[in-house]
Amino acid sequence: MANTAGYHVAVVGATGAVGQQMVQTLENRNFPIKKLTLLSSSRSAGKKMAFKGEEITVQEAVPESFEGVDIALFSAGGSVSKKFAPEAVKRGAIVIDNTSAFRMEKDVPLVVPEVNEEDIKKHNGIIANPNCSTIQMVVALEPIRKQFGLKRVIVSTYQAVSGSGAAAVRELNEQTKTLLEGGYYEPQVLPVKGDKKHFQIAFNAIPQIDVFTENGFTFEEMKMINETKKIMHMPELKVSATCVRIPVATGHSESVYFETEKEGVTVKHIQEVLEPAPGVVLEDKPEEQIYPMAINAVGKYDTFVGRIRKDPDESNGFHMWVVSDNLLKGAAWNSVQIAESLIKLGLI
Amino acid sequence: MANTAGYHVAVVGATGAVGQQMVQTLENRNFPIKKLTLLSSSRSAGKKMAFKGEEITVQEAVPESFEGVDIALFSAGGSVSKKFAPEAVKRGAIVIDNTSAFRMEKDVPLVVPEVNEEDIKKHNGIIANPNCSTIQMVVALEPIRKQFGLKRVIVSTYQAVSGSGAAAVRELNEQTKTLLEGGYYEPQVLPVKGDKKHFQIAFNAIPQIDVFTENGFTFEEMKMINETKKIMHMPELKVSATCVRIPVATGHSESVYFETEKEGVTVKHIQEVLEPAPGVVLEDKPEEQIYPMAINAVGKYDTFVGRIRKDPDESNGFHMWVVSDNLLKGAAWNSVQIAESLIKLGLI
Repeated sequence: MANTAGYHVAVVGATGAVGQQMVQTLENRNFPIKKLTLLSSSRSAGKKMAFKGEEITVQEAVPESFEGVDIALFSAGGSVSKKFAPEAVKRGAIVIDNTSAFRMEKDVPLVVPEVNEEDIKKHNGIIANPNCSTIQMVVALEPIRKQFGLKRVIVSTYQAVSGSGAAAVRELNEQTKTLLEGGYYEPQVLPVKGDKKHFQIAFNAIPQIDVFTENGFTFEEMKMINETKKIMHMPELKVSATCVRIPVATGHSESVYFETEKEGVTVKHIQEVLEPAPGVVLEDKPEEQIYPMAINAVGKYDTFVGRIRKDPDESNGFHMWVVSDNLLKGAAWNSVQIAESLIKLGLI
Repeated sequence: MANTAGYHVAVVGATGAVGQQMVQTLENRNFPIKKLTLLSSSRSAGKKMAFKGEEITVQEAVPESFEGVDIALFSAGGSVSKKFAPEAVKRGAIVIDNTSAFRMEKDVPLVVPEVNEEDIKKHNGIIANPNCSTIQMVVALEPIRKQFGLKRVIVSTYQAVSGSGAAAVRELNEQTKTLLEGGYYEPQVLPVKGDKKHFQIAFNAIPQIDVFTENGFTFEEMKMINETKKIMHMPELKVSATCVRIPVATGHSESVYFETEKEGVTVKHIQEVLEPAPGVVLEDKPEEQIYPMAINAVGKYDTFVGRIRKDPDESNGFHMWVVSDNLLKGAAWNSVQIAESLIKLGLI
């Protein structure tokens, strides 16, 4: 039922790179909030964060934190979600979870509102927010699929370090500065905080995001593969991915190859379908050097698409360049957008 | 005929990013030289460069500079090659040209010694050195083609700015420094010095290398497509490319998807073929986080290959990650290597 006075919203992991953007996005969108609870680990508890001109003190998350909460946005790592999301649901909250903890579970909808908003209706308390690199790709692919069908996707990513958290951004900046001054900065965070080895990200490209799985793909790559199929309701879609970290703070870029089902599709057809598509901004005028770039996507909710061109050999094959703010559409904004969809669909 | 006293070698564009590496590589390889002539535009003439402990004064290139020269290594831009390469050939020199001026001409061999060394025999005075991003890819693909055949290649590149010259490296460093200090640095060089607009490369990814052609691909992408077919003698090979500049000084990385002709090929088969392949170093132990990276390739002659894995859907499809020093194997070393092949094949 709609609550005219607004909702009690909790943000779990409020002090993290994505959590901060969630709070900011709730404010920017003027989301109907009657109470905002900011939660974190004990380490960050006590910090104060601004929301609509007020200061809110961050509290340590405990099961009781979720009493009376209507919507809980989680972005504090998979283990935190696994521990506290069921506690929140038990107390009547709807959880929108930005971690990979529940994404592939059968009864958990995995939602990008521009693609599969209706899936939210099937939720059982938890709605999962997909991986950042997946979201922007499916936003760009869905209008194409709808009109022309989709057979195959091959993506290579150029991912920003903020996807790995605020500590990774600090490492990029400090390391870059130190190297330019002729010093040495020991890598401690990237590519994966919990993995055995760490490598320099400044002036480098690291072909590892998340840990490796047995088939040689990383978990990040498998997320892109599996989540794309689930979100687009296409278990038969051929998808493969190579995920690479580059020295960019925020803004993921993706080189996407795709094949349509339909024959005879032209670049102009693809552009015409993407131009009015929800959440998409077409930036595709190579003759004027207009194409998407990470630095231009920062702070924006949209997914930017350009460099659309026909494969020289494959009659149904196309290439495009897809860019978005990984902290916003890739995480915070998509989560808040799911919350807005809950209201719009009368589910809360 | 072999000249035991060595050859008179000229380097045109000696003061540029690649030219400097050519001089250094000639020294490192102990190339049999009786005289080294360093040539440049009038702007850089008069500079002194070190070679084997001696100082050589750079001279302005004029047609007469090539009198008595046996081998002329060109890397001063296409227009300089077009002007002076015929003058050098007229005077009896063999030109090894690192620009795109003659690469696609029918009677000019386009050579990567590990792939098509024998093509050198057909030269008519000029031998072309391929584009940097093409060279490392074909070094990795050729052993695979030989053993299993090759049907298709889709590549997305992560290219270093030194491919765009020394001024681009300065721009990357100065711009990065200024941005980290909170300042503003007007882009003046990248993505393409001669194009209308310039964009920030620091903490960004620019999906443009060289200018655009009418089909929406850039010249860099078309070079990869056309040169790969020519070098590998496979006009029918399906190749497409997306070329992207990232904030790395030196070392190109490439995400390469390929399909073999032969059925039933495994990752292990590919590794076994690449392990002993000339010019290739296999770095492929994901369980130990061993994979190629740009920072590790700098200063080395080899092409590093890793992250080899089977496509989840396409039975003959594979992915790999290919990294090399774009100034060495991508330019200077490949050129010197061609000169060494000339001697080895008794062509000079």
